[in-house]
Amino acid sequence: MKHIGILGASGSVGMQGLDIIREHAESFKLVSFAVGQSVDVAQAIIDEFNPEICCVQNEADIANLNLDGKQTKVVFGDKGLLEVASYEKNDILLNSILGSVGLRPTLHAIDQGIDIALANKETLVVAGEIVMQRAKEKGVNILPVDSEHSAIFQCLNGEDSKNIEKLIITASGGSFRDLSREQLKDVTLEDALNHPNWSMGKKITIDSATMMNKGLEVIEAKWLFELPIERIETILHKQSIIHSMVEFNDTSVIAQLGTPDMRMPILYAFSYPDRMPRNAERLNLADVATLDFKAMDLERYKCLALAYRAIEVGGTLPVVMNAVNEVAVDMFLNGKISFLDIETLIEREMDAHDVIQDPDLDTILAVDADYKSRNYEV
Amino acid sequence: MKHIGILGASGSVGMQGLDIIREHAESFKLVSFAVGQSVDVAQAIIDEFNPEICCVQNEADIANLNLDGKQTKVVFGDKGLLEVASYEKNDILLNSILGSVGLRPTLHAIDQGIDIALANKETLVVAGEIVMQRAKEKGVNILPVDSEHSAIFQCLNGEDSKNIEKLIITASGGSFRDLSREQLKDVTLEDALNHPNWSMGKKITIDSATMMNKGLEVIEAKWLFELPIERIETILHKQSIIHSMVEFNDTSVIAQLGTPDMRMPILYAFSYPDRMPRNAERLNLADVATLDFKAMDLERYKCLALAYRAIEVGGTLPVVMNAVNEVAVDMFLNGKISFLDIETLIEREMDAHDVIQDPDLDTILAVDADYKSRNYEV
Repeated sequence: MKHIGILGASGSVGMQGLDIIREHAESFKLVSFAVGQSVDVAQAIIDEFNPEICCVQNEADIANLNLDGKQTKVVFGDKGLLEVASYEKNDILLNSILGSVGLRPTLHAIDQGIDIALANKETLVVAGEIVMQRAKEKGVNILPVDSEHSAIFQCLNGEDSKNIEKLIITASGGSFRDLSREQLKDVTLEDALNHPNWSMGKKITIDSATMMNKGLEVIEAKWLFELPIERIETILHKQSIIHSMVEFNDTSVIAQLGTPDMRMPILYAFSYPDRMPRNAERLNLADVATLDFKAMDLERYKCLALAYRAIEVGGTLPVVMNAVNEVAVDMFLNGKISFLDIETLIEREMDAHDVIQDPDLDTILAVDADYKSRNYEV
Repeated sequence: MKHIGILGASGSVGMQGLDIIREHAESFKLVSFAVGQSVDVAQAIIDEFNPEICCVQNEADIANLNLDGKQTKVVFGDKGLLEVASYEKNDILLNSILGSVGLRPTLHAIDQGIDIALANKETLVVAGEIVMQRAKEKGVNILPVDSEHSAIFQCLNGEDSKNIEKLIITASGGSFRDLSREQLKDVTLEDALNHPNWSMGKKITIDSATMMNKGLEVIEAKWLFELPIERIETILHKQSIIHSMVEFNDTSVIAQLGTPDMRMPILYAFSYPDRMPRNAERLNLADVATLDFKAMDLERYKCLALAYRAIEVGGTLPVVMNAVNEVAVDMFLNGKISFLDIETLIEREMDAHDVIQDPDLDTILAVDADYKSRNYEV
């Protein structure tokens, strides 16, 4: 029986993590979880799973939870979040919090020797070197939950990393893949939220449309798989059936394929290094009929080019890129800026930033907080 | 330094095995080889590689070899072939002999504890159970060299075989994939030899056109990977870029991709369990642009249905199927029968055969010899 903790339990990935625990109640048990303001979801999780500890964002929400007959201890706020993350009975922590706020809980869990099932890619984008170093010191597995990184992780099973030629991360192209840059000027929020393949949260759906999501993934892959950025490529593959690939030095390419269902990578992270059966829709390539591929276009997808630049320069530049992206996407979601303003804001702030190399954790968090608290105008 | 022996050194796979030894002279050394009647090729191999032992088919050919300044001992005939196969300095034997005549040398090499790089699929088709059992007893690796089986072998790296849901073997469809059964009545030998993707020997090119090649591969896969035949599927994939796939119990599918170049699987067999760099054309999926898939049609490709039937019934039926196929393809190559007569002959002889279950090696060889020596008329 593996004991699971989930941060961001009311989000898309968190809910699918609960599905997996439900499907494999004989192997996995939810012992801890955190939500933000979704108190109704927290109540439902407590009722169903009777976990040992739960964190809500606001202290006032605790009074709204009915804990009759339950063992669940309720904590709140940032301190509570860290308590859930590092809860001593967690064997694996599924970190599916949105944004760079996921970093501290990840580090706390690592310090407790808890394996991390990582859906919070910002953790590695802003502090990849520190996180991977800490995980190594503590002998902790960082298990990717993103479909692309889970794919690469699976393709590397039994392989020696010295033989990797390059990673090839596939990109669906997001909601606007068939539009030119000219046409992007007039797109609406509603258009942007309509992802062709995956049902995901709003932030990541917008990140997919700007291709910043792929940029974050490229940076995440660099840290997870310890490769120079030149060895990490992207390719447009609109069906999202091949989730990513590894090319080896002998020219062989290993790919992982499947239906677009995040529960598969979540289960893989939970069951690793074994696999466990799933009674779910299986890939039928004859039904799919065609897989298409197109070279990535870094002029068309400027945010991806910005991400490559950020990680090539390194230091605090990826922190700035990520922070401004989080704010800009939020502004777009709230109707304050246009779609193309997102990349404009990010580039402007990256251009103006005085990069600090080899930042420690406090520096990273300070820069992150600074750029998130600014008022941006276009 | 691994010492390599090659049977069928003048054939397509054998020659590509020599390419690999040439490319990696620091890691591989040719110590033994056998050819049939290609004495010129034997001479060239001796001149270039100065191996320790060589076998030619006919004693008379020995006199035509110039061995001045070479260490090479020359032997001949069936006895010589076994001597080369089991040559004590072989670390790996690449068996790329055509047809069921490859069986005895494989077993001799296994008895000497020599790993087998197996391109001769008939070895497993006629005597899979005996060969795999013998290999297990002797602790010998059977390393697949067929692109499909090498693909599956690579996809299974680091995986537990209990988690395999099924193997999915891809099939290009061969020279006649765009023709109906009606149109097949009029095809010529020249048409049949024009394979769309792979440059191979004549026998295997015809087997690709009849789809018997895929049938032999399905049977070979059953033995190599120890799976019930119901778990081995085929799918039409005309570009031959995905060389085969494994679907796991958690719905994840791992695939191996590459350009159509047999040297990659040969190198993998030689370098296993490591990989070694190749300076060769790399797969560019953006250039390929599209991968197509279509459900296999067992009515259209009758030889594949016959192969499934042969292995489901088991015993000596695959031996008969393979022997009659070898004769029938030879008759077609010599203009004695039409293309569709190949399947007609095989089916007729399979229908008439009294199957012997659990045959020992002598029974297998006797049935094989019997069906190869018959005169077939259509």
